[in-house]
Amino acid sequence: MPKSGLLEQFINSPLAAKAGVPQGEKLRRHAPGEPALDGPVVIGGDGRLAGGLRDLLGGDYQYLSAEADTKRAALVFDATGITRPEDLEALYDFFHPQLRKVTPCARLVVLGTTPEATADIDERIAQRALEGFTRSLAKELRRGATCQLVYTDPALGAGSAATGAGTGEGGAHAASASGLTPLASTLRFLLSGKSAFVDGQVIRVGAQAAEEPADWERPLEGRVAVVTGAARGIGATIAEVLARDGARVVCVDIPAAGEGLTNTANKVKGTALPLDVTADNAAEVIAEHVRERFDAPIDTIVHNAGVTRDKLLANMNEGQWKMVQNINLVAPVRITEALLEAGALSDSARVVGVSSMAGISGNRGQTNYATTKAGVIGLVDALSGKFAETGAGLTVNAVAPGFIETAMTAAMPLGPREVGRRINSLQQGGQTVDVAETIAYFAAPASSAVSGNTVRVCGQNMMGA
Amino acid sequence: MPKSGLLEQFINSPLAAKAGVPQGEKLRRHAPGEPALDGPVVIGGDGRLAGGLRDLLGGDYQYLSAEADTKRAALVFDATGITRPEDLEALYDFFHPQLRKVTPCARLVVLGTTPEATADIDERIAQRALEGFTRSLAKELRRGATCQLVYTDPALGAGSAATGAGTGEGGAHAASASGLTPLASTLRFLLSGKSAFVDGQVIRVGAQAAEEPADWERPLEGRVAVVTGAARGIGATIAEVLARDGARVVCVDIPAAGEGLTNTANKVKGTALPLDVTADNAAEVIAEHVRERFDAPIDTIVHNAGVTRDKLLANMNEGQWKMVQNINLVAPVRITEALLEAGALSDSARVVGVSSMAGISGNRGQTNYATTKAGVIGLVDALSGKFAETGAGLTVNAVAPGFIETAMTAAMPLGPREVGRRINSLQQGGQTVDVAETIAYFAAPASSAVSGNTVRVCGQNMMGA
Repeated sequence: MPKSGLLEQFINSPLAAKAGVPQGEKLRRHAPGEPALDGPVVIGGDGRLAGGLRDLLGGDYQYLSAEADTKRAALVFDATGITRPEDLEALYDFFHPQLRKVTPCARLVVLGTTPEATADIDERIAQRALEGFTRSLAKELRRGATCQLVYTDPALGAGSAATGAGTGEGGAHAASASGLTPLASTLRFLLSGKSAFVDGQVIRVGAQAAEEPADWERPLEGRVAVVTGAARGIGATIAEVLARDGARVVCVDIPAAGEGLTNTANKVKGTALPLDVTADNAAEVIAEHVRERFDAPIDTIVHNAGVTRDKLLANMNEGQWKMVQNINLVAPVRITEALLEAGALSDSARVVGVSSMAGISGNRGQTNYATTKAGVIGLVDALSGKFAETGAGLTVNAVAPGFIETAMTAAMPLGPREVGRRINSLQQGGQTVDVAETIAYFAAPASSAVSGNTVRVCGQNMMGA
Repeated sequence: MPKSGLLEQFINSPLAAKAGVPQGEKLRRHAPGEPALDGPVVIGGDGRLAGGLRDLLGGDYQYLSAEADTKRAALVFDATGITRPEDLEALYDFFHPQLRKVTPCARLVVLGTTPEATADIDERIAQRALEGFTRSLAKELRRGATCQLVYTDPALGAGSAATGAGTGEGGAHAASASGLTPLASTLRFLLSGKSAFVDGQVIRVGAQAAEEPADWERPLEGRVAVVTGAARGIGATIAEVLARDGARVVCVDIPAAGEGLTNTANKVKGTALPLDVTADNAAEVIAEHVRERFDAPIDTIVHNAGVTRDKLLANMNEGQWKMVQNINLVAPVRITEALLEAGALSDSARVVGVSSMAGISGNRGQTNYATTKAGVIGLVDALSGKFAETGAGLTVNAVAPGFIETAMTAAMPLGPREVGRRINSLQQGGQTVDVAETIAYFAAPASSAVSGNTVRVCGQNMMGA
């Protein structure tokens, strides 16, 4: 065994843990057929959402009153009732007594009102303040527990009167949940192992009509999904998870990827499409392939293909700049626009980009890469705005992975790799499945009210902007 | 000398530098009467701004052609001509050959078009991508050099035709700069030592009419400024810098601050107002004081007063939560609203909040503090939206300090302090004057087109959201 292998073994051993090297909790991830949570949910707060949450989540979850002494696996706090800075104390009142009672890998979710959708000055200030609370709390949690903030459109749940916390174990169910259905896919994602490596995030949910799937274990049943860069790494896992959720998957990768592409396609019982995404006719080829094989439009396109060519800008050659631009940014933009133009996307299509932590915070040695990954955020912003304006049922979102365990990170030098793994609130690297689960959540027909988000899958990495 | 003093001496010594402990360059800061830069500026790019930049900056700066071989102290690149992702190569073409020719503490500025103000999808994507570039480049620069991105309203400079880079040393000056005047205060701030500890930031500038001051050394001449928490630390320095720039300063602090408050007020030849900002009538008292002493409305209010009561939420008592909320968030909100209501602010008033890195990224042990500091960002968002809607000449912005050398940080334990100092692109802590200079820039009448910004003064600290 090479020296670095021994050192790595040590760094990741119980002995190193005793010496203070953070090891991170083994994260509870989604397993088909198993309960989403390994314990009950406590619901608190008294805004326009709390009363409908139990009906919304239904029988797949157990519930517990806020006062109960047994362990809870999730806390959901409806903060939409907070309309003035003075009201923020409700956060303290609810969470302070709960924190010692949560299980490992517990899920904490605060539901707020989208600040920029609020006309009232005081409410907008108070709602914006929630972000400082949830991001701090996420950093205080240990043993794999996470905390997120979900901002909801003011119209969501506005029909039903506020009916109190609905926390009583046997209490009558409050107002019908039908008005909250647009929130279902997000809440289920966050209250499960599917979001194991998503932490300290802010997700915005609209009020667009949504339907729950016939089976939450197969939320993509019958959908056609295209995944670029599917031969290996994160892309291969995306294809697997989308297929697990019921999608028919078209696996795209460069012709040179050869066997890797075939392997993924076979594994997911999908089709393989060898194609350079930078080719002028790439969109045409993809649309034609989908039409031929499935006689259907594209329901989801995941722009996962990407490369790095790291160099300080002073030392970078033009080819290193151009190649990264063309594959990571120009191709997704041109393919998306051409598919839209050609009417090759379905009326409820999901466009998913893959950004990066570097696209948010910038990164030394990655001016080329970070430019493209910030551009992907621009694609999400620009297209979601357009979709919202035109009332189209399409959505666009992106993931921004942090340190994910892949062949690429395994090949990093020991020091940067072991630091990179640990400088996040979960004190470990993520798995490719964590990125894939987040993409599957975006891809679901039930996520019609989820658009314009760039969600980091980074364990709340400390690096940011 | 205590042991930690010796260790600190070592850590900050040339010997430690040789051992790889980053020391950071001595930053060039503003000194009245001295040139803003210690070398010439190279202007590049060919959008709607480049042609007018030399006229805008005028005789206070020297200029150099992009091809010259001598050292340059600043690079300004007009990226507003970049309207498609394919055009981003212009960044590489301009910056790649310049980087080896910049002086220590050089200033790099990229001028773009505000993405969300752009209707064109391709342009919005390409402009959003600039952020990944500038944040990465800021991380590559060494020896105190900084890089920022300024997004400008599409209307800014749109009157004058694009006239090329205007980089020739002797070239005819292009279109009149009058249309670019709203940009002057921002550009002068960034192209000077006043922004020494501002790095990797994004600032948005509108197209609201602006006037240049009679004297750029006294941009606040005759203005009345109120600074809370002025007895010591950052607040005292804010008072000093505003006074240096010509303002008459009202120094506010709690009665218990006693001598500290008197000292600041005397030093800045201002007035002292002992006042608890959480008092119900705080706004009234401030307005009355200003009316009595100056027979004028308030031109600037800086909400600097703030406290910390750090505890994990699980261990925090209610008093620790409430006190931080009331002083840091409720008071600024209520005082601002009451002053607006009472008509106590001038028609060109500047409201300035003090947020924090913790308000952006969250911080372990600071749920109370980070909630308030995120709320301050909410105050900026909410009020700037309202001011823009009503066409008022008022602006609101905030600073978000990172690690700033104060009595508070000097009292930190050695380890966290020395790490905190160094985990930013400038590899050192900032000075209180760096925060104060940024506030003075917001406060200037010339900054009428600068509103809605939260600018970090953190040396591009790696911690973020």
